[in-house]
Amino acid sequence: LRRLKAPDVVIRRLALYLRILQQMDEDAGGRFISSKELGERAGVNSAQVRKDLALFGEFGKQGVGYEIGYLREELRGILNANRTINVAIIGVGELGIALARYNLRRFSREKHYPFRLVAAFDNDPAKVGRKIEKTVEIFPLAQMPDRIPEYRVDIMIVTVPADSAQGVVDLAIKAGIRAILNFAPTKLFVPPKIRLHYSDVSLELQQLAYYLEN
Amino acid sequence: LRRLKAPDVVIRRLALYLRILQQMDEDAGGRFISSKELGERAGVNSAQVRKDLALFGEFGKQGVGYEIGYLREELRGILNANRTINVAIIGVGELGIALARYNLRRFSREKHYPFRLVAAFDNDPAKVGRKIEKTVEIFPLAQMPDRIPEYRVDIMIVTVPADSAQGVVDLAIKAGIRAILNFAPTKLFVPPKIRLHYSDVSLELQQLAYYLEN
Repeated sequence: LRRLKAPDVVIRRLALYLRILQQMDEDAGGRFISSKELGERAGVNSAQVRKDLALFGEFGKQGVGYEIGYLREELRGILNANRTINVAIIGVGELGIALARYNLRRFSREKHYPFRLVAAFDNDPAKVGRKIEKTVEIFPLAQMPDRIPEYRVDIMIVTVPADSAQGVVDLAIKAGIRAILNFAPTKLFVPPKIRLHYSDVSLELQQLAYYLEN
Repeated sequence: LRRLKAPDVVIRRLALYLRILQQMDEDAGGRFISSKELGERAGVNSAQVRKDLALFGEFGKQGVGYEIGYLREELRGILNANRTINVAIIGVGELGIALARYNLRRFSREKHYPFRLVAAFDNDPAKVGRKIEKTVEIFPLAQMPDRIPEYRVDIMIVTVPADSAQGVVDLAIKAGIRAILNFAPTKLFVPPKIRLHYSDVSLELQQLAYYLEN
């Protein structure tokens, strides 16, 4: 219930605060950080930091700030970052492979990185049955209804071409997926209970182009 | 001056409207689209479409809608999509190469895709002097002050690791860059006149994780 109270922008900032705390000295154990310093690193003012965190509890002490290790663990709890989050990819093209490798590398190297790539899906017969980095198997799309529960996939990353994106997303939702990160350059439509985020490179480039001088 | 009046979210929607119009039939020349239909495809209501477009001019006719080819060309003009936008990449790792190839493929195949990758930068001696897809040369970072004006780079894509991102972005700005798309998983600080957008995969995943059931 409490989850519904926090606007998306607050969750985005919490994820940013968590990253900042995780990038700080691992041995920062007993140290404190003020809302001013955390805000400066996150690019927001200190009142915003205090307001965002107050939505979830009292984590700091007046005039002292937040104990770094404690706040980090609390944020990890709030954001579900204290358990492994299983991720799968639909679309094993260049972008899909690059994202898969990036993910696998970070998961193996970074203590605090919770996202583990567990499966991939593609309909190309040349890819099905192979493995990415010798560890992540590529399944045909028709196996999603079995494989998604089997691998307990939490988040689906979509890197198929624009014109097949809606179809594969419909299939993934039918197979139980509730959170999607879409890289296909197209708008997708999903039921209200599904979380859909976009990472849309060409839309970002088109927005940036607007601000260029002619 | 007019540019300053439009909020960022409006520019984002204009880029989305343009994409929708470009994905429609190339021969849609004489056809009209209503604000209702355009809104449905963009996931916003028709009043929002009319309000967004009205900020830039009168493009439609009451009760008829917008002539598709005309509105498309007008939006291309507003968004600077009717000229080639030169893009460069700093950081020729897996993600950098995947984005480079994705970009080159779309530029060669899609009539309306205005983003042309013209140069890449990296300090790895094994990469410097080589070419991506036999066309895009990889230069050392120290050559940015010469190469950025030479190749008339409009937008810089940053795909270096988090801890070197601020340094390379400072260099790129000194060399004349005014628009940046950052893939490095870290907050960057730039002067107010610089446009900086983020494409932050792990921050998106972390936000999505919040909404998962425990």
